[in-house]
Amino acid sequence: MAVEVRAALVIIGNEVLSGRTQDANLQFIALGLAEVGVRLKEVRVIPDEQSVIIDTVNLLRRQFDYVFTTGGIGPTHDDITSESIAKAFDVPLLRDPRAVERLLRQIKPENLNEARLRMANIPQGADLIDNPVSHAPGFRLGNVFVMAGVPRIMQAMFDGIKGDLRGGARLLAVEVTIAGGEGVIADGLGALQRQNADVEIGSYPFNRDGGYGTVIVVRGRDGGQVAQTAQAVGHLAKACGLAATGQDQAPK
Amino acid sequence: MAVEVRAALVIIGNEVLSGRTQDANLQFIALGLAEVGVRLKEVRVIPDEQSVIIDTVNLLRRQFDYVFTTGGIGPTHDDITSESIAKAFDVPLLRDPRAVERLLRQIKPENLNEARLRMANIPQGADLIDNPVSHAPGFRLGNVFVMAGVPRIMQAMFDGIKGDLRGGARLLAVEVTIAGGEGVIADGLGALQRQNADVEIGSYPFNRDGGYGTVIVVRGRDGGQVAQTAQAVGHLAKACGLAATGQDQAPK
Repeated sequence: MAVEVRAALVIIGNEVLSGRTQDANLQFIALGLAEVGVRLKEVRVIPDEQSVIIDTVNLLRRQFDYVFTTGGIGPTHDDITSESIAKAFDVPLLRDPRAVERLLRQIKPENLNEARLRMANIPQGADLIDNPVSHAPGFRLGNVFVMAGVPRIMQAMFDGIKGDLRGGARLLAVEVTIAGGEGVIADGLGALQRQNADVEIGSYPFNRDGGYGTVIVVRGRDGGQVAQTAQAVGHLAKACGLAATGQDQAPK
Repeated sequence: MAVEVRAALVIIGNEVLSGRTQDANLQFIALGLAEVGVRLKEVRVIPDEQSVIIDTVNLLRRQFDYVFTTGGIGPTHDDITSESIAKAFDVPLLRDPRAVERLLRQIKPENLNEARLRMANIPQGADLIDNPVSHAPGFRLGNVFVMAGVPRIMQAMFDGIKGDLRGGARLLAVEVTIAGGEGVIADGLGALQRQNADVEIGSYPFNRDGGYGTVIVVRGRDGGQVAQTAQAVGHLAKACGLAATGQDQAPK
């Protein structure tokens, strides 16, 4: 069986914890990682506090193959991610000439004040991550990728590094949509899961236009097994008197 | 100074980690907690895995005043939150007659199959949380509140318990919107933060309609201090040649 490559995401930002900002990065990163065969296994949203960032990153980088962070690499006093990562790795935070050169693509020399120059402070030994939107780079140190929090910039950074990740086999999925609540088929679904331990069967009820429905997601690395289980889910639904669609699609 | 009442949220669900579903619960809970003077300090998104749920809940319930969980209390095999919480607290999971009675408000007796009855399995000693939408209850055990993942149900459950939370002083905030990037005022803003250690100054750049802007959020428990600092932010922006709005509003 293929080895699972596992990642964690750390969303750094008081603005998400306060409810001021709706996070828009988790889903983008989750879907992008899945494309390259990396599985997002944990997400933490933490405040702009140095000790919390250090402890969280140090724990997760030992537990997971990859750690991604978003947020806290701008020019203001509350942007403390870079110095916290340097401390987590116990390396100095240095003014990086490569990063200064990139800032100068966007900012006139006379406007490159001390605050903006903070965006060129990079932990020693890190590789820069391109920022095609506003040039202030992210960086990679060991298995930790440090990216901006602004979604447009984060997405450009992530798209640039995605190809460098070494993933395992992609998880394939088929979604079967059932015209009824999950309670009707839940017993049979549990039995199907027990009989097919190599796939994961998820059940997600929804309420749309006043009617109840359920999406059953079958995931696994073996396309044949996924397809077979999805068909069994369709048969189960019909045996319970519910219409089902999607079970004959190829896994993707 | 008022004691800070701190909470953590655990979002339980493979569907969020896979990117299939965009979480819609974090922001609602964050804003609701803020209303009653409870501060959300950490969020974790974790998979439907019993050992992870147990370890996460046991860690966080000792670290925070309140822990909220969403997801995993439905009728299907992947709904394992209730049994995991029972194990975390080392109490038995029992068929709860109060919960069965509630299920019977929604489900005809002949349709109350074994799977649906799982929704009435509640850890011993827990108080039920009302579910005015579909009746299957959540529950509270110690400082842990276990709620549904479907946003409409979660919101109804949360609104029902919010009044029982014992919060500290509310954080008041003023937002100052500045017509320019944060790099221009960052140096001055850092100085303002150092001079006003009892308030938190957050800086959130945005890009709208092709223009850059920044929202500065000043938060604190003392309305006078918040208002004063917000005005100082406005003056700072103007001294840097940028228009600023909002600094004269009352903190809310």
